[in-house]
Amino acid sequence: MNTQPPAEAIDAFIAEVNFNADGLVTAIAQDADSGEVLMLAWQNEASLRQTLETGEMVYFSRSRQKLWHKGESSGHTQSVQRLMIDCDGDAVLAKVVQRGGIACHTGRTSCFYREFSPTDGIFSNAPVKKDPKAIYSSDK
Amino acid sequence: MNTQPPAEAIDAFIAEVNFNADGLVTAIAQDADSGEVLMLAWQNEASLRQTLETGEMVYFSRSRQKLWHKGESSGHTQSVQRLMIDCDGDAVLAKVVQRGGIACHTGRTSCFYREFSPTDGIFSNAPVKKDPKAIYSSDK
Repeated sequence: MNTQPPAEAIDAFIAEVNFNADGLVTAIAQDADSGEVLMLAWQNEASLRQTLETGEMVYFSRSRQKLWHKGESSGHTQSVQRLMIDCDGDAVLAKVVQRGGIACHTGRTSCFYREFSPTDGIFSNAPVKKDPKAIYSSDK
Repeated sequence: MNTQPPAEAIDAFIAEVNFNADGLVTAIAQDADSGEVLMLAWQNEASLRQTLETGEMVYFSRSRQKLWHKGESSGHTQSVQRLMIDCDGDAVLAKVVQRGGIACHTGRTSCFYREFSPTDGIFSNAPVKKDPKAIYSSDK
């Protein structure tokens, strides 16, 4: 999505989305190349609209109650290649190019690094690629 | 996960999960082979526990307010190969083998078949593989 789509197309798509009582849908970001599921967060109508307009993932931060342009602090923005909703319209799936190859605030590729282990209960299945202190410092 | 894991491992994993005020977490099912994201639903503690015990995806149906063994009506069960939680513990990602190759009640592989189109707003990006009437008849 390199050029801004027409407002009519965005309106038609958003009309199919079923936002919940809080005005939100879940949004999954998936690496467009590797297929790795990177993270799950939430979007309200404004953040979904901004995502479609700009081609970069914008979520709604429930803790901060505001729009959250992914990567605004870390530089790890997500460029949207394709965006889908599911059959009942309450979940978004975005295929993205993850800048820096890091979606997680822990410095890992994906947020889903804590895996069930039949022996130990839980283990970390992925390395930290960059120290979070370096990610969130003023030097990027 | 071919044999039932020890209760201690399941307890240790579940202790890391942050269920929301309704006792739920979002749960993503992803095809273990193709990487395709198949569906997003919800789990409560009992359904997550049953998933880990049995190796088949069990969700919690919010509309029916009961455990939902995926495939109980359609035969399209999901065999869990790996199961992860995200960094803040409020989302589950399961890599599954999708029986019948159909996760969606519309007869498609994935529920995420409604894709944004800059020209038309929305389009269906995947064919119906099996008529839902045939899926949900008594003959499977």
